[in-house]
Amino acid sequence: MEKRSYSAVNRQPARFREREGIIFGAHPVEEALRSGKQIDKILLNKDGSGIIHEIAKMAAELRIPVQRVPLEKLHRETDGNHQGVIAYVSPIDYADLETVVSIALFQKKVPLVLVLDRLTDVRNLGAIARTAECAGVTAIVIPNKESAPINADAMKTSAGALNYIPVCRVDNLIDAILLLQQSGLQVFAASEKATKTIYETDFTVPMALIMGNEEEGVSPQLLRRANELLTIPMVGKIDSLNVSVAAGVMVYEVIRQRMGV
Amino acid sequence: MEKRSYSAVNRQPARFREREGIIFGAHPVEEALRSGKQIDKILLNKDGSGIIHEIAKMAAELRIPVQRVPLEKLHRETDGNHQGVIAYVSPIDYADLETVVSIALFQKKVPLVLVLDRLTDVRNLGAIARTAECAGVTAIVIPNKESAPINADAMKTSAGALNYIPVCRVDNLIDAILLLQQSGLQVFAASEKATKTIYETDFTVPMALIMGNEEEGVSPQLLRRANELLTIPMVGKIDSLNVSVAAGVMVYEVIRQRMGV
Repeated sequence: MEKRSYSAVNRQPARFREREGIIFGAHPVEEALRSGKQIDKILLNKDGSGIIHEIAKMAAELRIPVQRVPLEKLHRETDGNHQGVIAYVSPIDYADLETVVSIALFQKKVPLVLVLDRLTDVRNLGAIARTAECAGVTAIVIPNKESAPINADAMKTSAGALNYIPVCRVDNLIDAILLLQQSGLQVFAASEKATKTIYETDFTVPMALIMGNEEEGVSPQLLRRANELLTIPMVGKIDSLNVSVAAGVMVYEVIRQRMGV
Repeated sequence: MEKRSYSAVNRQPARFREREGIIFGAHPVEEALRSGKQIDKILLNKDGSGIIHEIAKMAAELRIPVQRVPLEKLHRETDGNHQGVIAYVSPIDYADLETVVSIALFQKKVPLVLVLDRLTDVRNLGAIARTAECAGVTAIVIPNKESAPINADAMKTSAGALNYIPVCRVDNLIDAILLLQQSGLQVFAASEKATKTIYETDFTVPMALIMGNEEEGVSPQLLRRANELLTIPMVGKIDSLNVSVAAGVMVYEVIRQRMGV
């Protein structure tokens, strides 16, 4: 009885609430994949076989990240009958990068794409999405793996912007950059080590801007692919801005130049 | 014995660790106040008398916020013998606004002061301090009450900038604005409702910029005192940026104009 009254007070214990953003059970997840539902990640029992292998194969074809975990981890995620399979439903619909850029070019817009290289902080991701929406950025590109998840905190920090701004999730940022360059975009990367400042650069051209991980900045293999490295002038002892602030300063310098003011 | 071995493993239990940032006990706190140590806040037993009243009086003279709380609250803060008195030591030394501005003017610098009106998020405070330090801002002004505290999270988000940038804590932001205006500074306030943009404004003059609370923006009584209200152009559905991003965009527009680029 005591337990029951406890449940009555906590009408939505944490494990239950999470059911809102997840689908569990082999067949429900299989069906979700077939229906084209946008899934962020799938957890599979690492000792599972049969249908679990089938789901792993389907996920690989659809390029959905899969993690094989111990059964206990799955139990912790839901108290429902998960059968060794839990899928996390994406809170947003991802867009296709090539399509978004093509449409912008067709509409005679000058694209401005933000490429976010392995950001780890959901609040930075959210704040950047908010800036991007306010500034009319064409799209945000994030990698499939090693990126802060678009979760409830990211949505909240974005003030809803993640519902409006096209977000393109790609397997490989290098391929994405090549695609952008083939579409005629200049690709700039933010780097504290650059000598050219954002104020000495022509941003009225079709362009993409790569912002890097909070600790390491933009990765060397992406820096190499960029057409140019740019910096924001610094006069103090601290040598870098918070990444969402840096993105804001850079994006708005683009906006200012394009406004012709 | 079991308890002792537990203590040995957790060499610094949470309650004990907090002793680093606090001073407790009537006489130690009295002495700290006399010695001019920078105290952020004092908790007093709400049923205390005698020396507790003395401390309340000293704190009022020194304009240090005092909270009168139940004894249990004090017990939760420390397991030391607090005698109804706990003082929170400021992690930074505050600067005097008039002095900082006078020095900047004497050195023929063009002041740029950031006034933060009731920011509630320590991470925004930290990120703005980081931007301010990177951009060579003269000082940050925060109110004594109703401001995010300069705590460990703020220090961390500032990447250490709070150790370098002068932070002025004032009783009243209206008085601070009058002081800045009397010192010859133009006071601009960020407001989504403004019609004039930051790109149509001359920022090469001595100036201060008021950034407002995350939910409400700059308070009406400060908006009235400002020389001009300014906005950042928005094209999307979301009508405002995160406050630390907005501060970054505005501060760097000042820097750009002063660089003459």
